[in-house]
Amino acid sequence: MCLNGTGETVRARTGGPVHAEPARPEAGLPAWPSRPGRVVDLSHVLSPTTATFDEEKPTRETVAPALPEGEVGFHFNRWTFLEHSGTHLDAPGHVVGGGRLVPDIAPEELVVPAVVLDVRERAAQDPDTVVTVEDVLEHERAHGPVPEGSAVLMFSGWSTKWEQGDAAVRGMGTEGTWHFPGLGAEACAFLVEKRGVSGFGVDTLSSDPGTSTDFPAHEVIGRADRWGLECLTGLERLPPRGAVLTVGVMPGEDASGAPSRVLALV
Amino acid sequence: MCLNGTGETVRARTGGPVHAEPARPEAGLPAWPSRPGRVVDLSHVLSPTTATFDEEKPTRETVAPALPEGEVGFHFNRWTFLEHSGTHLDAPGHVVGGGRLVPDIAPEELVVPAVVLDVRERAAQDPDTVVTVEDVLEHERAHGPVPEGSAVLMFSGWSTKWEQGDAAVRGMGTEGTWHFPGLGAEACAFLVEKRGVSGFGVDTLSSDPGTSTDFPAHEVIGRADRWGLECLTGLERLPPRGAVLTVGVMPGEDASGAPSRVLALV
Repeated sequence: MCLNGTGETVRARTGGPVHAEPARPEAGLPAWPSRPGRVVDLSHVLSPTTATFDEEKPTRETVAPALPEGEVGFHFNRWTFLEHSGTHLDAPGHVVGGGRLVPDIAPEELVVPAVVLDVRERAAQDPDTVVTVEDVLEHERAHGPVPEGSAVLMFSGWSTKWEQGDAAVRGMGTEGTWHFPGLGAEACAFLVEKRGVSGFGVDTLSSDPGTSTDFPAHEVIGRADRWGLECLTGLERLPPRGAVLTVGVMPGEDASGAPSRVLALV
Repeated sequence: MCLNGTGETVRARTGGPVHAEPARPEAGLPAWPSRPGRVVDLSHVLSPTTATFDEEKPTRETVAPALPEGEVGFHFNRWTFLEHSGTHLDAPGHVVGGGRLVPDIAPEELVVPAVVLDVRERAAQDPDTVVTVEDVLEHERAHGPVPEGSAVLMFSGWSTKWEQGDAAVRGMGTEGTWHFPGLGAEACAFLVEKRGVSGFGVDTLSSDPGTSTDFPAHEVIGRADRWGLECLTGLERLPPRGAVLTVGVMPGEDASGAPSRVLALV
């Protein structure tokens, strides 16, 4: 997420120092599945029409056109996009001055257990709903504690709206406001401080809900030196816990974030 | 790899039909490590100065500048690059007309066992060397059969030259020719036909050696409907076999290839 709904860059509050104690498993990767049987793709295809928070869309120019069937040569394109296009990762430095950028994130932080918080029912009733601490505790009562170093993913069911275009994904109200579910800042703080998670993910355009104007979930995640994935898809194919996420974020120099191929091993 | 050394697009031979029987493990992921202890990053940072086969380099424009230390807002950039920039994957359709493009590659083909062929000693003596069938057989005698569905990676030691810039990476001869190691077409055909590999990788700019003008390894790999990773790094941190590769290729619509975050689980 980069700009607010009116296309202006958000320049918000000044706060305290960046909290720089990300969860980095020291003794091997936790909660490793004994033998994963399948790979679930959690990334949308990136295209010139994909839903985006910003108005600017990716572009693709053909440099060397596709060849006739069976002929050998070289076909390729040139791409241009904002870092926060498609399924992508927000690095802490996207949100907080001095925060880590994409190449600063250790590889061990990109292979983590996934915890899926299913809020589809509530989101279908109320598109402005946010993930709460109670959602986390309820998940833990059913499935056990959130493992240290996990990525906690909001599963709102929103990814099916990608086929319908920006207006549906943004949940455009008649008055121009946006309505989609997001992470509550209190739940993010709880998961960082009490559970030591590595990162977060949402199947919507932004970690904060569509109605947000001050982006407190982004701020909590960024100040905690954690990453956030946005625009995930395929979460219906993950178990509530037990999958391992591999976050293939494009390693751009000085990048605040980047399109990411997120593959889950189940 | 996209263009030849003179910057011209290569339009080569017409051949037979595309061979479309890629190795797709049906019954779970083979050769899964019991519990990986670390993650090895096999991708170079993508930057405006990174070594490239083509003359065109990636560009990064700052759209919203980095914030002062500790302030909250949104910092991000815009990137433009050719699909075959940085550590990247060639889809079959990069090379063969009608071949599969990036989104056509199944997620299961992107999480595969890695086999590392160490040809550093020979490459240090002869930059024009290629990986042979005998190299594969010698590896198998020492480490056991190449597992079906593997990615076979040439480890030439070339990635250390990335710090020295294009001329060193290309192995520029005084007469303008290029010299770096690559895959031999016979070894590629053997690995596809006899071992059922999923893909290939090299730590140089191109699957074919720098001297190549007709790119037979590309042709064999593309016609066999397999993918090829180019510009890998970090191979010295992998065992000869036993690691699992996760290929985080950016899923661009109609893309012939894309920058890829390749993480190995060891």
